[in-house]
Amino acid sequence: MLNYICTCCGRKTPATTREPVCSCGGLFELDYTPPKWNDEKIDRKEWSIFRYREFMALDGDSWREVSLGEGLTPTVELKPGMFVKVDYAMPTLSFKDRGAAGLVAHMKSIGVAECVQDSSGNAGNSVAAYCARAGIRCEIYVPEGTSPKKIAMIESHGAKVHVIPGSRDHCADVCRARVKDEGVYYANHVVNPFFYEGMKAYIYEVFEQLGRIPEHVVLPVGNGTLFIGAVKALEHLHQSGAIRKFPKIVALQSEYCDPLYQARKAGKDDPVSVDVKPTIAEGIAIGKPLRGREILDMMKRHDITVVTAPEDKILAARAAVAREGYYIEHTTAANFAAWDRYCELYGPATDVLITLCGAGIKSDH
Amino acid sequence: MLNYICTCCGRKTPATTREPVCSCGGLFELDYTPPKWNDEKIDRKEWSIFRYREFMALDGDSWREVSLGEGLTPTVELKPGMFVKVDYAMPTLSFKDRGAAGLVAHMKSIGVAECVQDSSGNAGNSVAAYCARAGIRCEIYVPEGTSPKKIAMIESHGAKVHVIPGSRDHCADVCRARVKDEGVYYANHVVNPFFYEGMKAYIYEVFEQLGRIPEHVVLPVGNGTLFIGAVKALEHLHQSGAIRKFPKIVALQSEYCDPLYQARKAGKDDPVSVDVKPTIAEGIAIGKPLRGREILDMMKRHDITVVTAPEDKILAARAAVAREGYYIEHTTAANFAAWDRYCELYGPATDVLITLCGAGIKSDH
Repeated sequence: MLNYICTCCGRKTPATTREPVCSCGGLFELDYTPPKWNDEKIDRKEWSIFRYREFMALDGDSWREVSLGEGLTPTVELKPGMFVKVDYAMPTLSFKDRGAAGLVAHMKSIGVAECVQDSSGNAGNSVAAYCARAGIRCEIYVPEGTSPKKIAMIESHGAKVHVIPGSRDHCADVCRARVKDEGVYYANHVVNPFFYEGMKAYIYEVFEQLGRIPEHVVLPVGNGTLFIGAVKALEHLHQSGAIRKFPKIVALQSEYCDPLYQARKAGKDDPVSVDVKPTIAEGIAIGKPLRGREILDMMKRHDITVVTAPEDKILAARAAVAREGYYIEHTTAANFAAWDRYCELYGPATDVLITLCGAGIKSDH
Repeated sequence: MLNYICTCCGRKTPATTREPVCSCGGLFELDYTPPKWNDEKIDRKEWSIFRYREFMALDGDSWREVSLGEGLTPTVELKPGMFVKVDYAMPTLSFKDRGAAGLVAHMKSIGVAECVQDSSGNAGNSVAAYCARAGIRCEIYVPEGTSPKKIAMIESHGAKVHVIPGSRDHCADVCRARVKDEGVYYANHVVNPFFYEGMKAYIYEVFEQLGRIPEHVVLPVGNGTLFIGAVKALEHLHQSGAIRKFPKIVALQSEYCDPLYQARKAGKDDPVSVDVKPTIAEGIAIGKPLRGREILDMMKRHDITVVTAPEDKILAARAAVAREGYYIEHTTAANFAAWDRYCELYGPATDVLITLCGAGIKSDH
């Protein structure tokens, strides 16, 4: 049976719990070590992230009723030594589908009938779509100012949308109060450990597709859902001896919202409190990442470099990538701006993997 | 060496020609028979449509500089006996990327440096993106009224956009005059035979993913690019003995634009001239399909049923599919409305493959 461990007090709780966090208030993580990586354990007849299910914390076959065919996105050598993973080629057009598939498969397996989630972006859209597929009632809390089009997409999946006046943080507070008061399941991409199980496939796919992992892996960090999932998968491959060298991870934040960059610079264990300025890389504009401590711990463990994406280079990066054939979200463009910055700071580098995490049309208003 | 054959006079022309049509004015098709289907000829290390390149008319390795990772989209059993292929999970979010990859790979291999294309929709976007990747100059002719957002996406790929006052047909005329007068290459999805080579992979993928082809295959027909490609691939699998029975193809048109439906009903060899009314299934609203004769010939050969999608059922079909997790284009929704219509007319049927050819966000204005 699967257990959660509290990242704060270390207590174990069965993963069948409906509680979002430990009774001490600490965040859960999974008490799970995947079996040693072995190519032969890939289910090559399954064309979704669940082809790697032998290495995912999953109970039962519920994923079959949940998958929308997410993952197995192309990994393309766009220029010599630069690999892009077209991770918006997904059911809801964003990489968040990986995590939502993992999370909702878990919810289905433990019999969750309804859930809530707060989001202003791709994660809410994704959870709503997977809940529709799974037959789970779903309510999404969005902050005021969320575009009517985004709301219409979420509602199309049968989810109820609550528009909450005030900030994004306040919107999360309202949603969490609902979880606390009514005991409704919290299908949140940051809090729920099963979301990260889905994100791991990002790395497994690259490893299967290229037969190796590029020397540099660029990972955007807002709440760090992709970052945490990718690092977990890389640790798994490394510990299994499937890859000999741990790649050089280049993590990036917006220069207008860089609590982890600042923490790393100052050698702190917790995110630094920063003044957040508006950035067009809105997908990574998270002032207080809930799992900041965990992320910083991973950064220390693997000597991960953090750079910031210069705001004034993001649009130019977006245009340059479109000239190569891919129309990407602003947040995705920040990955390229940050990679250029890394090469400026640390010298020219090659053999790099960069994610195209969101489709451009989603960030056009 | 590859040749074209004229569908009108039968004359052969080397496929390296820059001419769009035969000197008699007839449309070209490829003089090409793929080798017998054999699973072992799939290049399982290539994660795009080009994994089936042994069965595609391709010269050389130019596709490597052209592919954006199109194809290998998921095939998901959405309900028992209903398989959907998530064919919008593509670099430009539409199934047209299959054809554009095939076409631009050919252009690259024969050294085309610039091209023109007319389109008001997905095909122009797709050709622009692949030309960007391939380093081929590209100009797209669009009719007035094309949304500024669509134009911005095409331009982002470095293509020059000409907005032509008047109808969609007039826009094509202006583009073709340019081709005729200046000899510039016509990268058109209907006219150029290599586009269909890319579309064939739709069927090859389903066959690889499911290990069989469902009993019914629903195919939308406007200009018939997917239809022709899919029928070619099915004929190939059938003639190779890979599938024993040719599936029952259900072709569909809009009830407001049904020149092939009418021709089939009247037993004609050519599309019937029809009054076209505006339909929300704009992707299949083609009053005069250039390859209508070819399509009708295929329909006769395989006893293909044509149905029309009832206009007043399209929005409801779109909503119903969103409730299952996929947010689709209006034109895609017509596929489901037409399948329902088929079951009403011919009795309940199951084991069907339906394409999700375009992402919903692309048809929201």
